[in-house]
Amino acid sequence: METIDHYSSQCTSVTTFLVQLRHVYGLTFIEPNIQNDMDKVVTCLAPVNIAAIKYWGKRDERLILPLNDSVSLTLDCDQMHSQTSVIAGPFIKEDGIWLNGQIMPIETNERLQKCFNLIRQLIVKRKGENCPEAKWKIRVCSENNFPTAAGLASSAAGYACLVYTLANAFDLLNEDLSSIARQGSGSACRSIYGGFVHWKAGIDDLGSDSIAVQIADDTHWPEMRIIILVVNDSQKKTSSTVGMQKSVETSELLKYRIQKCVPERTTQIIQAIKDKNFEQFAEITMKDSNQFHAVCLDTYPPCVYLNQVSHEIISFVHDYNEATGQIKVSYTFDAGPNAFLFILQNDLSSFMSELIKVFPTDQPISSYIRGIVSTQSDMLKKPGFEPKDKNLLKYIIVTKLGSGPRYSDNHLLNNNGTLKSK
Amino acid sequence: METIDHYSSQCTSVTTFLVQLRHVYGLTFIEPNIQNDMDKVVTCLAPVNIAAIKYWGKRDERLILPLNDSVSLTLDCDQMHSQTSVIAGPFIKEDGIWLNGQIMPIETNERLQKCFNLIRQLIVKRKGENCPEAKWKIRVCSENNFPTAAGLASSAAGYACLVYTLANAFDLLNEDLSSIARQGSGSACRSIYGGFVHWKAGIDDLGSDSIAVQIADDTHWPEMRIIILVVNDSQKKTSSTVGMQKSVETSELLKYRIQKCVPERTTQIIQAIKDKNFEQFAEITMKDSNQFHAVCLDTYPPCVYLNQVSHEIISFVHDYNEATGQIKVSYTFDAGPNAFLFILQNDLSSFMSELIKVFPTDQPISSYIRGIVSTQSDMLKKPGFEPKDKNLLKYIIVTKLGSGPRYSDNHLLNNNGTLKSK
Repeated sequence: METIDHYSSQCTSVTTFLVQLRHVYGLTFIEPNIQNDMDKVVTCLAPVNIAAIKYWGKRDERLILPLNDSVSLTLDCDQMHSQTSVIAGPFIKEDGIWLNGQIMPIETNERLQKCFNLIRQLIVKRKGENCPEAKWKIRVCSENNFPTAAGLASSAAGYACLVYTLANAFDLLNEDLSSIARQGSGSACRSIYGGFVHWKAGIDDLGSDSIAVQIADDTHWPEMRIIILVVNDSQKKTSSTVGMQKSVETSELLKYRIQKCVPERTTQIIQAIKDKNFEQFAEITMKDSNQFHAVCLDTYPPCVYLNQVSHEIISFVHDYNEATGQIKVSYTFDAGPNAFLFILQNDLSSFMSELIKVFPTDQPISSYIRGIVSTQSDMLKKPGFEPKDKNLLKYIIVTKLGSGPRYSDNHLLNNNGTLKSK
Repeated sequence: METIDHYSSQCTSVTTFLVQLRHVYGLTFIEPNIQNDMDKVVTCLAPVNIAAIKYWGKRDERLILPLNDSVSLTLDCDQMHSQTSVIAGPFIKEDGIWLNGQIMPIETNERLQKCFNLIRQLIVKRKGENCPEAKWKIRVCSENNFPTAAGLASSAAGYACLVYTLANAFDLLNEDLSSIARQGSGSACRSIYGGFVHWKAGIDDLGSDSIAVQIADDTHWPEMRIIILVVNDSQKKTSSTVGMQKSVETSELLKYRIQKCVPERTTQIIQAIKDKNFEQFAEITMKDSNQFHAVCLDTYPPCVYLNQVSHEIISFVHDYNEATGQIKVSYTFDAGPNAFLFILQNDLSSFMSELIKVFPTDQPISSYIRGIVSTQSDMLKKPGFEPKDKNLLKYIIVTKLGSGPRYSDNHLLNNNGTLKSK
């Protein structure tokens, strides 16, 4: 998290237009200068998204088609993002990705390879079999500005960023990128869009209707804030890929969740988002998080992602809401112990001052709380809650909704495909 | 637990016969000596039972009628029991119960009062409205030989013991006591029988068909052992009465569990018990425990009864079974963090030696492990598991199946209704 504020360039509409113009000029009319143009590195950022209605269970493992719809919020790239640089051209000898300072062949990763193939199929579809770009080898460097190990949906941001950057490089931004990103990592399809996103499960065996669509952009409900509580944890974990496979195989309750609960909740939460009805949105979010973890526990052997600190956060949120007489804040947990809290801007500072009293730290407040909130004062008049042990949380990130992936001119690669020194 | 082995008197068939004969003689023929006979204290023990298919949710709060069938194992009274002494007669001025050295009126407890009323209704039904016993006041003293606060199903044993002792005192042992015990505490109806017990939910609004029946007695599968791991815990808890009310009101998944999962599992586990198929029995037990806790987590706000140590026990059991290539041991958890493990006698010593390595203690082994197992030796040849932190468990009780409630001559009351000094 040291680099959290490294990338703050905004994707203005003028920049986007110029970038797209350059690529249209370079790729659509196959002219002599195309090679020079593509020799320039293209770099993009893509955001993390947090599901309020959870994706858990695939109907097709290979195509990554889900058993149920999901609904997510795309976070602002300013606080957390994946960053990917791409260079392609005849001078690259082999598809490769820079990982931890070393170039690795793409063949070592099936999902990466699938994304590359799907992008090449799109190039051929758009520009014909004989277009040179379809044969160019591609070099990629990708990194997150947040710890991959922290269980903060890094693969969703990572694959969304890869696909968006490749699409940017090959002038494919008008295509349905969500279905390509989905085949890298299911929930990556939701990070292609900003604001509130609905990933429709679809029913087609080939997945043509399993796509992400935007419910509302990030300007629809600008007061929405997201607080991420990164929990200190050492528990061994089942990966979400393996966990959801096991749930599909063994959990009886998952069937009912998919058939009955999720369809009802999806309709309700989309309405709550459209109506900006926070209490309704918050309650469904908490219930769906709990039900997802219930299904994990109903899996055999059980998958346990929440730890004692997660449960203390859950209790604190319910106690806080009860004390205020309203649902002011809600929680959701992915396949890990970290909490994602939703709250409106007006309630943020009161809640934060209570939060840091209940979950105290030995750190200076400036490193404990990161993102868009400043240190809070003594706003809360009512009697506070009992403080828990110190340092249960690693740190807290406060962020807001974002507008989706965007272009960046802060490249990770040199134009010859080598790693840029930092 | 200091008094765990205080009561070891066995209820031989001769004793039972004599006791019953005494009461038949005393009560059925309303003779002058009846009053003198009833002036003698009657004392019984009743066992704890552990559900393998869990009871969670009532269809009638007042009559304590469950939404689903449950299946349980009745434990041996030698290790854990409730003990109740009863004295009744015209010389007792008020119904009362001795609690912590003080006599309390029965009116303070609705459920106790209900059990008294139901017993009196039975007396009238059997002996007519004008029989003197129906008007006698009753004095009770009841205690457990295990900590009530430990969450070890103390109310089930307690109410079963109260009802069984009253029935013994008033010669009502041939009546259906399970439906009276049920109205004290739902799962108490299962402690009326020994061995394996099936509590049928029933469909009658008045509960006439919601009764416990014995699947097989304790001699059917004598190799069955139960290991109770009492966990160190300070978490605040939702009582099971409140928890199941909330689940019925808010958990979507509970509906499916009741309609679909429990009926299938009940049939399967009864067959597994009849066939003495341990692996089948063990797998269903683990799955049903996990599903019950999944439903608790799906409750809003969620009820969390398992803690980190509970989850470590769950992981250890699965790891152990995987290492041995067979399901050698299974777990179940009630509305608390303590584990109840099932294992066959032949596998007990190997497992115990591994268990105490993985959950080490600072206590002498003789106080750490209680019940019917002696300290184990170096039986396990295969590489062991990593030991966890010390003192995660308070103590371990090893026990077996029992034959149900029984008579005892170790009275808690004097014949005049006062508390016996210890």
